[in-house]
Amino acid sequence: MSQPVLNQYQTVPYSRIYSLGAARGDLTVTNDDIAGPIDSSDEWIRQRTGIITRRRASKKLSLMDMAVTASNEAINKAGIQPSEIGAVIFSTITHPYQTPSAATLLADKIGANPAPAYDISAACAGYCYGIAQADALVRSGVAKYVLVVGGEKLSDFIDPTDRTISFLLGDGAGAAIVGPSETPGISPSVWGSDGSQWGAVGMDASLLEFRDGTHQWPTLRQEGLTVFKWAVWEMVKVARQALEVAGVKAEDLAAIVTHQANIRIIDELAKQLEVPEHVVIARDIIYTGNTSAASIPLAMHALLESGEVKSGGLALEIGFGAGLAFGAQVVVLP
Amino acid sequence: MSQPVLNQYQTVPYSRIYSLGAARGDLTVTNDDIAGPIDSSDEWIRQRTGIITRRRASKKLSLMDMAVTASNEAINKAGIQPSEIGAVIFSTITHPYQTPSAATLLADKIGANPAPAYDISAACAGYCYGIAQADALVRSGVAKYVLVVGGEKLSDFIDPTDRTISFLLGDGAGAAIVGPSETPGISPSVWGSDGSQWGAVGMDASLLEFRDGTHQWPTLRQEGLTVFKWAVWEMVKVARQALEVAGVKAEDLAAIVTHQANIRIIDELAKQLEVPEHVVIARDIIYTGNTSAASIPLAMHALLESGEVKSGGLALEIGFGAGLAFGAQVVVLP
Repeated sequence: MSQPVLNQYQTVPYSRIYSLGAARGDLTVTNDDIAGPIDSSDEWIRQRTGIITRRRASKKLSLMDMAVTASNEAINKAGIQPSEIGAVIFSTITHPYQTPSAATLLADKIGANPAPAYDISAACAGYCYGIAQADALVRSGVAKYVLVVGGEKLSDFIDPTDRTISFLLGDGAGAAIVGPSETPGISPSVWGSDGSQWGAVGMDASLLEFRDGTHQWPTLRQEGLTVFKWAVWEMVKVARQALEVAGVKAEDLAAIVTHQANIRIIDELAKQLEVPEHVVIARDIIYTGNTSAASIPLAMHALLESGEVKSGGLALEIGFGAGLAFGAQVVVLP
Repeated sequence: MSQPVLNQYQTVPYSRIYSLGAARGDLTVTNDDIAGPIDSSDEWIRQRTGIITRRRASKKLSLMDMAVTASNEAINKAGIQPSEIGAVIFSTITHPYQTPSAATLLADKIGANPAPAYDISAACAGYCYGIAQADALVRSGVAKYVLVVGGEKLSDFIDPTDRTISFLLGDGAGAAIVGPSETPGISPSVWGSDGSQWGAVGMDASLLEFRDGTHQWPTLRQEGLTVFKWAVWEMVKVARQALEVAGVKAEDLAAIVTHQANIRIIDELAKQLEVPEHVVIARDIIYTGNTSAASIPLAMHALLESGEVKSGGLALEIGFGAGLAFGAQVVVLP
């Protein structure tokens, strides 16, 4: 029997980010509010992390609520119809169901049903992983527009007495629309992982241990020094490689938007990259805290809203976190 | 300041599945073994679901163990080095950690470190979602080879007294290597979701309810009739559309490999598609059970191993499940 030749999609040369949307927790949590259980102080937390306040969500504000708000803003600003969305990628580590995904519900709530929709787990690298996938889906012709959401309600999974990471964390969601472009708008992604350091940051127990009563509610923990060293010394290499494959130099950038892990990591990365004065360094962590997958789109959105950077400029975005996983791209600002 | 033009990746015209790998639970669980708590019988379960035995993993065999076995087989059969893998996509709903992902650990264990690695949540559609993404990553030039794994240890999340879905479920992992091709090997994906039916199949409670003591350990439940009707009547349309966009007819197929949800759904789908006699219908469910994201690669692997289908033939694969999410492609058999 002769067999027909399959069709495959037509490819598209370029992609870009059309727009961003943002939502933060409805509560402003000060260092004094959380210092007690960790026997700390406002001054210590500011010096060590840069955080003055973090935004957290009250009981009445869900992860889904924040994701819907951020997505609707991105869709409106992109000037597209939600029905034109060809894929919904929701990066989160705080959706409290093994299944179904958060993305399918989000797609329905924003009018993108019946778009394909899936969650990804790549922690604080999740937004950059989502952009890498969206770029691939758009250029390979699989989807015209892709909605990428990084969203977390980390306050559901923290331990108020933990001094390693919980006190840094905030809640929020950032969203981006990625679509076809006549000029390059997203550079090749430099992304990867190092599972040999799987235990350096993440949950302190399996859910099955909690089920079996052999461990309390799993919460986030990190080996601070291990993560700090990796985030600075390995991510400097990743950032340089991202610039190289993008074909741009640090001085060409309008902004560097790193995952908002800790002000010391952000500052050390900027210093090592020898960034000229005119390049804006995102420091959204100061008033938002570390929101994992949401932190990069939130920080980029804030820079655009404040006018510190302008549409059309170049930004290096770099995410890194549990896995360990990392991802970086140079993007044209929407 | 003049701004340089960004580089973007070079695209590749075609992709294909190079190889498959498979691992099943180490325990063979009969209907008699599980009939007691659901007040049922071997005969009732066979008639209703087609299942004679399901394979489940003992306590000593983890989800990761099965994923590693399946991945190593796929890598070996593809004739590639694990270091050539440019992305690891692990589709699962039973990784018992909010973070880090299972994929980063898997990448390290199989020698693919430092490949980018992420988990996806798309339930029983997860393998076809993974193939859709792998196809996009390969053709967009982002990755040369992609490892797609669908793996589940569903026995960790079931309720032995549940008559809606638990008794169908098995444990296993299937893996595929996707890479560049000189001829079309993966048709355009027909994939999507219907979040308006988010509650039709999935966990019966949030993990937060379990944390707060207001609900017992969340377990899988389904509205059987709702899911059955959707899986037959909507998936017939999806299957027809997948054939159409692939440019092939049902008679061109060597096999149809549906998600192994239930023999009645499989048989009804085949009947509605008016498939000629020579097209093999995968019925791996009979001795494996329903393994969610693992079921399609396990079933396809079994057909190839038994010689019922041959490399180079065309297979329609179609996954569907919680979300509700669905995905279908026609692929050239590896």
